[in-house]
Amino acid sequence: MVPHLPAQDRTAGAPRRGRPGYDLPSVLAVAVELFNERGYDGTSMRDLAGRLGIAKSAIYHHVTGKEELLSLALDRALSGLSAVLARTRALDGPAITRLEHLIRGSVDVLEAELPYVTLLLRVRGNTEVERAALERRRAFDRFAAELVQAAARDGDIRPDADALVTARLLFGLVNSIVEWYRPSRRADDGSLGDAVCALAFDGLRTRKGPDSVMATGPAVTAAPGGPVRSARPAGPDQ
Amino acid sequence: MVPHLPAQDRTAGAPRRGRPGYDLPSVLAVAVELFNERGYDGTSMRDLAGRLGIAKSAIYHHVTGKEELLSLALDRALSGLSAVLARTRALDGPAITRLEHLIRGSVDVLEAELPYVTLLLRVRGNTEVERAALERRRAFDRFAAELVQAAARDGDIRPDADALVTARLLFGLVNSIVEWYRPSRRADDGSLGDAVCALAFDGLRTRKGPDSVMATGPAVTAAPGGPVRSARPAGPDQ
Repeated sequence: MVPHLPAQDRTAGAPRRGRPGYDLPSVLAVAVELFNERGYDGTSMRDLAGRLGIAKSAIYHHVTGKEELLSLALDRALSGLSAVLARTRALDGPAITRLEHLIRGSVDVLEAELPYVTLLLRVRGNTEVERAALERRRAFDRFAAELVQAAARDGDIRPDADALVTARLLFGLVNSIVEWYRPSRRADDGSLGDAVCALAFDGLRTRKGPDSVMATGPAVTAAPGGPVRSARPAGPDQ
Repeated sequence: MVPHLPAQDRTAGAPRRGRPGYDLPSVLAVAVELFNERGYDGTSMRDLAGRLGIAKSAIYHHVTGKEELLSLALDRALSGLSAVLARTRALDGPAITRLEHLIRGSVDVLEAELPYVTLLLRVRGNTEVERAALERRRAFDRFAAELVQAAARDGDIRPDADALVTARLLFGLVNSIVEWYRPSRRADDGSLGDAVCALAFDGLRTRKGPDSVMATGPAVTAAPGGPVRSARPAGPDQ
């Protein structure tokens, strides 16, 4: 329904062979939209040409085929995540601080690159491009599990938390956001990264001890009563 | 690769029109396996007959068609979740305790009915059966958001936690488990429900105040050193 998305400048390393109408980032954005709607396997170059309203040959002006579009799209998600990983590695400080930086940064990338990260999370390893993307995700998860383990050794994470299960739950929490988050539907101005980190690191439960992480404001500032009527399923509706 | 799964007795309300070879729960189990592998839309009755190694007519002995299989499968996941919801509604006690009961119960159903819940979470509302399932999930999520709001009013949940975002994150955390959890691969004996509730309600960070929820054991009991090598991506690999 939105055949021509605005061009985006951040398709890292993408050549910009100019042609009136669509540049490569625009073609890529529409391709990713279709891949997410119908699945990569279920989308043909003919479908893409139809959605764009141009001839297939005009797409081949930009890329060699569907797999190059997939590769460019996955690279865009992964390069965002890799930058977060590199920044986290370079960070001084205890493991728990670095872990929190990694999680918050991942949420930020997910928000900024939602369709690309959504596609990345659906990749199942059916092609060489997909397997390479999975391998890069795996390195990311390994690093997170190492940080969990280091933070547990430092005594900053509950010692009963299994490092692997914890790393999976943390990324499960982050990744689940693609199922419901829509930028235009954000009801509040709070940072999603803050909400995720507050839940994951400090928990929902109010802390009542003197070392409480709670600010010393009024005990309850939540909106008053009444059932919540607008909740949607955690997955997309319709 | 496992053409004949063991018969299961808990397909609620499923008629058991006997026929040698496969009973309805076995047919259903194989159908759900295929739906999860190839998608519901991408699976034909011919595919199912092929996997079962029987004629299509033998399947029609049990059900009227593919949509009845979907309906039975979704009912199985939803009836487990509905039972948790009913038990939570009947529970006395503060909202936060009931919310924790709801989350822990949802994880238990997910573990017990993994393929059925996986299918439920992938439903996108393309048919009447799918839309009815989404509506039942929605009621579940509304109830969770109401509990979050009530617990915030009680002062038991951080007042800065947005009720809707929190409910979505909680179910995102629970639902993400289907992406990596495989019963046979469980490395430890801890309850997954405990791990989820500990993370969501108390957070990963060690509590050092006198009201700490930590047991007074040794500060660090995590396995000693070395990088974690076996971490897999949060999504299924391969």
